[in-house]
Amino acid sequence: MEDESKVPVGRIVSGIQPSGRLHLGNYMGALRNWTLLQERHDCFFFIADWHALSTNYEKTDALRGNVRELLLDFLSAGLDPEKCVLFQQSHVKAHAELYLLLGMMTPVAWLLRNPTYKDQMAQIENRDLAQYGFLGYPVLQTADIVLYRPTHVPVGQDQIPHLELAREIVRRFHSLYGEVFPEPLPLLTETPKLPGLDGRKMSKSYDNAVFLSDTKEAVWEKFRTMVTDTQRKRRSDPGRPEVCPVFSLHQIFTPKETVATIDRECRTAAIGCIDCKKILTGEVEAILEPARERRREIEGQGSERLSDILESGARKARTEAELTMEKVREAMRI
Amino acid sequence: MEDESKVPVGRIVSGIQPSGRLHLGNYMGALRNWTLLQERHDCFFFIADWHALSTNYEKTDALRGNVRELLLDFLSAGLDPEKCVLFQQSHVKAHAELYLLLGMMTPVAWLLRNPTYKDQMAQIENRDLAQYGFLGYPVLQTADIVLYRPTHVPVGQDQIPHLELAREIVRRFHSLYGEVFPEPLPLLTETPKLPGLDGRKMSKSYDNAVFLSDTKEAVWEKFRTMVTDTQRKRRSDPGRPEVCPVFSLHQIFTPKETVATIDRECRTAAIGCIDCKKILTGEVEAILEPARERRREIEGQGSERLSDILESGARKARTEAELTMEKVREAMRI
Ligand code: SF4
Ligand code: SF4
Repeated sequence: MEDESKVPVGRIVSGIQPSGRLHLGNYMGALRNWTLLQERHDCFFFIADWHALSTNYEKTDALRGNVRELLLDFLSAGLDPEKCVLFQQSHVKAHAELYLLLGMMTPVAWLLRNPTYKDQMAQIENRDLAQYGFLGYPVLQTADIVLYRPTHVPVGQDQIPHLELAREIVRRFHSLYGEVFPEPLPLLTETPKLPGLDGRKMSKSYDNAVFLSDTKEAVWEKFRTMVTDTQRKRRSDPGRPEVCPVFSLHQIFTPKETVATIDRECRTAAIGCIDCKKILTGEVEAILEPARERRREIEGQGSERLSDILESGARKARTEAELTMEKVREAMRI
Repeated sequence: MEDESKVPVGRIVSGIQPSGRLHLGNYMGALRNWTLLQERHDCFFFIADWHALSTNYEKTDALRGNVRELLLDFLSAGLDPEKCVLFQQSHVKAHAELYLLLGMMTPVAWLLRNPTYKDQMAQIENRDLAQYGFLGYPVLQTADIVLYRPTHVPVGQDQIPHLELAREIVRRFHSLYGEVFPEPLPLLTETPKLPGLDGRKMSKSYDNAVFLSDTKEAVWEKFRTMVTDTQRKRRSDPGRPEVCPVFSLHQIFTPKETVATIDRECRTAAIGCIDCKKILTGEVEAILEPARERRREIEGQGSERLSDILESGARKARTEAELTMEKVREAMRI
C-alpha cells in the first residue's frame, strides 16, 4: 500500500446497509466520524439497499421502511444534506453498470478466497447464502466506492482486507484498460468496541443495544436495569470497575477525570451504582438528546422531506457517477 | 415445460454478440428467421456488447467497430428498424440492474453446473475465463430476455438448456416475490448445419466462411476454389455428391428439383464442377445481392444513420424495460 500520509484527503465515500435502527455502537463506529468528515471533505454517504439483498433477498418486506429509518438515523446523528451527498444506492443505476463491468474482469478465485465469504459460508447454516450476488459482494462494493473516485474510504481495522480487494480489482482494471480511478486509500477510523447492556459487544441481534431513536425513558430504563459488578450486592459493598460493563461505557462516553473519580469512588463504595449510571446517562444523553431534537425537526417537515433529500442526493451522485462512467466506457472502448 | 402450442407468439427477444462480420451460417441460423419474425410479431433484437466482454474482456479495441459491423449486417440481412426494435444492450442500463437483482437470488451452484461454463472451462486453456462475469453469463442472459417480457425466444435445439436455466431463475423469482414475467417459451428454430468451404462447419475461426458483406467477386473466388469430390480429378470423371461439400450447400440453398438434377448429372459427369458451383453461386447471390444493395443504401445515408437507428431503438427498448423494472422493484419492495 502507498504511503497514505502523502495523499491529502479529498473525497470520501462510505455506505451502510439498511437493516433496522442504528445503535450507539454504529454511531461511535461510523456516524460520529462521518459527521466530522462532512465538515472538512467532499463526502458521499449512501444507503446500501442493493447490498442488503445479498444476505436478505428472501425477506424484503422491511426494506423500504429500513431505508427510511436509516436516513432518519443519518440526519438525527447530524449528517447534513447541505454538507454531504446523502443518497440511496439503487437510485444510481451506474452502481449496477460498473458492478457488471468490473465483474467481467474479476477472477472468481479472488472472490472465493475472500475471508468474509468463507466465514459466512462456514458460520451461517440456516440461510442459503451461496447466491451469485453474495459471492460478488466485493465487486459491488468496489463499484460503490470507485464510482465516485474518492481519495479515501473510512474503514475500521477489520475492514482493511475488503478495501485491499477493492484496490486489487482497481489495479487489474488499470492494467487492462489504463488509469481511470484513484486507488482509494484507507482512512483508518477508531472503532471502539462498544459493550452492550449485557457486557457483550453491542449488537441488534444480541438485544443489548441502545438505539439512536430510543426515548429518554427507554434509555434510562435500559441503563437502570443494566448489570454492574455482580459481586456488589449492597450499596455499601465496594465495586470493581474493571469487571463492570457500565464502567466500560464510561470509558467511552465520559470525560477522563470523571472516569478516574468513578474508578476511585466505586472501589471505596463512595458512589452507588444508580448514581454512577445517572452520570453515564447524562453523557449519553448529551449525544442522544440533540439527535432526538434533529429527528423531531425532520419529522416536522412533513412526509415528503425524506424523499426530497434522497432525490436531491441521487441527482448529485448521478452526475458524479456519470462522469466516472464516461471515463470507464471510454477506457474499455464500449 | 408447458405445452407451447397453447401460447400464441406475441413478443420475441433475441440478441447476438458483436464479434465480427456475420457469415452465411449466422444468416441461415438466426437472421433469416428474424427477418420473417419481424413481419408478424413484436420483436426486440439487440447487439449484446456487454456479453462480448464476458469472454473478451482483455481485448476490447475492436468492440465499437464490431457493433457497427453487426448493425450493418442486421440491416443488410433485411431487419427493418420500422418493423422491429434494434438496439445495443449497453444503451439500456436496466439490463445491468436486472442482472444485479436476479443475481442476488441465483444459486452459484446452478451456474457452476451450467454445461456451457463447464465446457468452456475444460476446453479453453489459454484464456483465463474464470471471471465473475463469465460465471454469471446465464444471469445476464436471463435479464436480457425477461426485461422485455417476451412470450417466446427463438432458439436452436442446442440452446434449449440455456433457456431452461433462464426459466428456472424466473420461477425462483416468482416463488420469492410473486409473478412478474411470462415464462419465456422456446420458439424452436431450424438451424441447418452449414458446411464451410472446407466441409467443416462454417465458422469464422476455421477461416472457411462466406460473409454477408463479401463482394460478388470474393464469393465466386471462394466457391471457385472450394474442394469438391476429391476423386473427381477430370471433367469426365463421375462425381459423388454425398461426399462433396458443394453439394451440401446446394441442399440448403438450391430448389429441390435442381438439387435432384445435379445429383443425377454429377454421377454421370453430365455436369462439371465449375457449372455446378455457378448454380450454387447464383442461389447464394439471390440472398447476398439484395443484402449488398441494402448495405449500400444504408451507407449512402451518411455516417450518422447507424447511431440514429441505435438511439431510436434504445429509446423504445428503455421505455419497455422501465415498465418491467417498475414491476420488479415493486415486487421486491425496493
Ligand atoms: S459504581 Fe459504577 S462502575 Fe462501580 S459497579 Fe456500580 S455501575 Fe459499575
Ligand atoms: S458436380 Fe457439383 S456436386 Fe458433383 S462433385 Fe462437382 S461440385 Fe460436387
